[in-house]
Amino acid sequence: MATTYTTAQIAELLESVSNWGRWGRDDQRGALNYITNEKRAAAAKLVTSGEAVSLSLPLATRPARDNPTPVTHLMIRSGQTGHPLGSSGCADYFAIEPHGLATTHLDALCHHFWRGQMYNGFELSEVDFQGAHKCAVDVARTGIISRGVLIDIPKIRKTEWIEPGEAIFPEDLEAAERDHRVQVGEGDVMLLRTGRFKLRRTKGVAAIAGSAMPGLHASCLKWLHERKIAVLGSDAVSDVLPTAYEAPLRMPIHTGTLVMMGVHLIDNADLEALAEKCARDGRYAFMFSLLPLVLERGTGSPANPVALF
Amino acid sequence: MATTYTTAQIAELLESVSNWGRWGRDDQRGALNYITNEKRAAAAKLVTSGEAVSLSLPLATRPARDNPTPVTHLMIRSGQTGHPLGSSGCADYFAIEPHGLATTHLDALCHHFWRGQMYNGFELSEVDFQGAHKCAVDVARTGIISRGVLIDIPKIRKTEWIEPGEAIFPEDLEAAERDHRVQVGEGDVMLLRTGRFKLRRTKGVAAIAGSAMPGLHASCLKWLHERKIAVLGSDAVSDVLPTAYEAPLRMPIHTGTLVMMGVHLIDNADLEALAEKCARDGRYAFMFSLLPLVLERGTGSPANPVALF
Amino acid sequence: MATTYTTAQIAELLESVSNWGRWGRDDQRGALNYITNEKRAAAAKLVTSGEAVSLSLPLATRPARDNPTPVTHLMIRSGQTGHPLGSSGCADYFAIEPHGLATTHLDALCHHFWRGQMYNGFELSEVDFQGAHKCAVDVARTGIISRGVLIDIPKIRKTEWIEPGEAIFPEDLEAAERDHRVQVGEGDVMLLRTGRFKLRRTKGVAAIAGSAMPGLHASCLKWLHERKIAVLGSDAVSDVLPTAYEAPLRMPIHTGTLVMMGVHLIDNADLEALAEKCARDGRYAFMFSLLPLVLERGTGSPANPVALF
Amino acid sequence: MATTYTTAQIAELLESVSNWGRWGRDDQRGALNYITNEKRAAAAKLVTSGEAVSLSLPLATRPARDNPTPVTHLMIRSGQTGHPLGSSGCADYFAIEPHGLATTHLDALCHHFWRGQMYNGFELSEVDFQGAHKCAVDVARTGIISRGVLIDIPKIRKTEWIEPGEAIFPEDLEAAERDHRVQVGEGDVMLLRTGRFKLRRTKGVAAIAGSAMPGLHASCLKWLHERKIAVLGSDAVSDVLPTAYEAPLRMPIHTGTLVMMGVHLIDNADLEALAEKCARDGRYAFMFSLLPLVLERGTGSPANPVALF
Repeated sequence: MATTYTTAQIAELLESVSNWGRWGRDDQRGALNYITNEKRAAAAKLVTSGEAVSLSLPLATRPARDNPTPVTHLMIRSGQTGHPLGSSGCADYFAIEPHGLATTHLDALCHHFWRGQMYNGFELSEVDFQGAHKCAVDVARTGIISRGVLIDIPKIRKTEWIEPGEAIFPEDLEAAERDHRVQVGEGDVMLLRTGRFKLRRTKGVAAIAGSAMPGLHASCLKWLHERKIAVLGSDAVSDVLPTAYEAPLRMPIHTGTLVMMGVHLIDNADLEALAEKCARDGRYAFMFSLLPLVLERGTGSPANPVALF
Repeated sequence: MATTYTTAQIAELLESVSNWGRWGRDDQRGALNYITNEKRAAAAKLVTSGEAVSLSLPLATRPARDNPTPVTHLMIRSGQTGHPLGSSGCADYFAIEPHGLATTHLDALCHHFWRGQMYNGFELSEVDFQGAHKCAVDVARTGIISRGVLIDIPKIRKTEWIEPGEAIFPEDLEAAERDHRVQVGEGDVMLLRTGRFKLRRTKGVAAIAGSAMPGLHASCLKWLHERKIAVLGSDAVSDVLPTAYEAPLRMPIHTGTLVMMGVHLIDNADLEALAEKCARDGRYAFMFSLLPLVLERGTGSPANPVALF
Repeated sequence: MATTYTTAQIAELLESVSNWGRWGRDDQRGALNYITNEKRAAAAKLVTSGEAVSLSLPLATRPARDNPTPVTHLMIRSGQTGHPLGSSGCADYFAIEPHGLATTHLDALCHHFWRGQMYNGFELSEVDFQGAHKCAVDVARTGIISRGVLIDIPKIRKTEWIEPGEAIFPEDLEAAERDHRVQVGEGDVMLLRTGRFKLRRTKGVAAIAGSAMPGLHASCLKWLHERKIAVLGSDAVSDVLPTAYEAPLRMPIHTGTLVMMGVHLIDNADLEALAEKCARDGRYAFMFSLLPLVLERGTGSPANPVALF
Repeated sequence: MATTYTTAQIAELLESVSNWGRWGRDDQRGALNYITNEKRAAAAKLVTSGEAVSLSLPLATRPARDNPTPVTHLMIRSGQTGHPLGSSGCADYFAIEPHGLATTHLDALCHHFWRGQMYNGFELSEVDFQGAHKCAVDVARTGIISRGVLIDIPKIRKTEWIEPGEAIFPEDLEAAERDHRVQVGEGDVMLLRTGRFKLRRTKGVAAIAGSAMPGLHASCLKWLHERKIAVLGSDAVSDVLPTAYEAPLRMPIHTGTLVMMGVHLIDNADLEALAEKCARDGRYAFMFSLLPLVLERGTGSPANPVALF
């Protein structure tokens, strides 16, 4: 398999996975359109035991090598100010960069640009100091509720985790499908496990703190496009980093999904408990829910995705 | 029906609805324990058409008479800083008081105290400057997924909205059950519509900006307790305000639910679209999901609850 | 006196007060260059009694009609968390928009643009998402310490305050000089009192909450330029608002001072106590100090200017 | 010289330097009372050349080992949003913990407690979630303007810097006075240089990132008290850390100055340029100004102190 591309080849590759215009010129929802009412209803039918698994890291309030922009969490009132004989309350405050490196979050389609444009050809000038006037995170205000499918790469490679910088190829995805007895299809939320947080928990933050990330090789784009996934999530950032491409194409998966296909991304999902549950049950498809905050003009949202079995 | 109580009577009322100890001395989840795996699986079975309705107001970034603590939303990078020939990205930042008056949010059990204690007898000193060490919002990290039931009071009172300050009684709840052909039961998320946002949209913010709120009279506490609801939500704050009780009991529903019963509250849910959908379908029960941010030690979370039909 | 201008006339007027290139092509300090060491030493010699007067409003943490972006002030630790028998501490946090309408602040030269440029011809693209790469507030990091001169317009017009929307002309400035027995000169910090906060305290916030402001008519620009002031401050925003000019020239004094002359502005200074002191002493010149926070790339700084007599 | 104390001895020492009641029972300004009008006027008379030196670090927006709580600095509008043919503006936002480890700041008297009390016997309960109701930073709203005296310890010890953890004794202070031909006296702002930022610039952040700090030994308290200083500042935190005392007395200089003497502290002042200037001129006294933000109920303020020669 060819693992490098010329600039012309990558441009051609990106063009070949474009969904621009597929849902109309004004569409801002992209591949969320694959999640029809029927798809949601079918996802709900997957629920049998009712067991729920959270895919969110805790919001991290301490700076760390993998968390340069920690969440600020402060109290406005504590219990200590309350009336000792009556009722009282407490409240807090937090400030957050949704795209923080240690935050489980949804990337809105406006989060990424290619050659001056975002999904469906909207100009990057649509994102200014007021925020995103097109493709903001509130296009998903009714939630991302669909069938979720876990693709557990360390499992099929018989390793504990994929090393930072190591690429994942279409044949890995297909090997996982065979192993997991599941097939990724139209409207699915595909969750790609690299074992990154197992690495962090085993070897400490230094092991994951650099800019290298395990993730999908650009050659997976066509595969994702053909499968018509609605959303792609990962315990890293979906792209393998560093990529072999010359700038200015740093993250071909981000570009191919967010910009060309209109596929929303979920970064930094904690897939460890999910992987254990799937392996235990021998079942890799479930009802998936992610309910983003309704931040009009927002470029993303912190999120607590939940898998329901 | 008696609509006022002496201090002794209210203390007795609160005591009578206590769930302290019901799920063990160390329990911090309260009535969320009613939401078993079976309850979640049954909720998923309610889904037929797959239609989803958001119950969240947009996060309000402008100060208004009903929004003294607006959300701060700022950009970190916009499209304008991007590489015109290559890939680039944008990102933002927001700061929020989850309990803001114009924010759809979940109240954690630690949010409210009565006579120096929170749910299950935890001391209010458990909430200090680091946040809540007991009953924080992350006890719901696997989400609040259950059967939701809408109780539409304006519908049964044949009015557009309930006026601020007007109380709702147990007989209203039962009249709604009869009208809606639904019965609130164990583990349900009960959503109480007062029409407050219809009032706001019709008459403007001044109509709802005062401290008066439509909501449940204290006499509803026993009813809620007997029905074993898991969570109570409203398009106001569940309590009727002002109450007739002498301080220091300002909000008997908050006290009775959060502190005594361990019932989480949802404030400022936008129930207008939901009410229209329920009326249209003649169906008032649905799959309900609220996936709070995993803010360890948080006293609440902004939320985008979604009803699935 | 002509009180309106054609677009061509205003362009000519702005050109006529330009200091671009006066202190070199790379200069970012503008008229602060008028404040020489000698000027500072002379300012210190004005001090006789040692009495100090603050010109700062308190940082306003409550939203109000004239404060849409209140300062956020939260505690990180309070006394209540301290060791009762030993030592302990408290700390806080605040978030601020320096240019807030209710905040006493210094405008950096980068705060304003005219036809795509800031002072000395720097391009507006020098201010991006990282902040200001030219003419940021830290050019004043050694402080603005000079002779301050109060120009008390209500005093010479024998009124309590100048009404919002009312313009001040060069002859007013000269009448004030005669009355105050002072002459504004090279390197001075000129403080223009309109009595706006006396109006606010007398009639309430509604009286000042609109967009109208008392301030200098554009015809004052030549006067300010000839006098070679270093900094202009006011208890409003220096410009009379609304102006009579067609957009896109909304604030000719801002444009003429910040962009053309390189004169920093101080907005929303509280000049009431200063005016009383000056009137009592019959003395309108004093040592002035403003020590901006060293916010590299900042577009302004909240400030507590102090007059020393 | 005794360098360690028993708990009883330290309590006695603290008691011996108390100024409680000296300026009345209700006094909240403490040793700022030493800065009389006459003192300020005399300070201004020290100005000869008019040269100004800033003592502030830049507000540090990047996390570092010595900056766990970086300043948040974001843009609200940049040049890029402006009208290309007309006038436009930019603005920003910042959020700060004034007591941050990498921030030059003033500690208000309310910042520190001893045995449940702050300066003048005010209870620590006076600092709650609303902030400080006594001894807040706004007691200094007319500024701290007085004679400043630099005490340059590395100079008299003939070293480049004092190592973290190394203590400074009264005899060092007196040796410095002899060397500098200056005597610290009533109402002075004493600035203690340890060379900490020279160490940082020479050896990098790791050299200063631990919890050890160079600073004054507790035995200096009596000396400071006798000299009747108004304010104490340092390029570290005035206290030597770690101290030899058993908890709960972690920072005897903080306790002795802020709580007992009512002496405000300045932490993390950058004294490098000042030391060079003083050495060059052979002059260690100057006019000192620090103009704190008027943050009512604030426990401190970021500051840009300036020395004027």
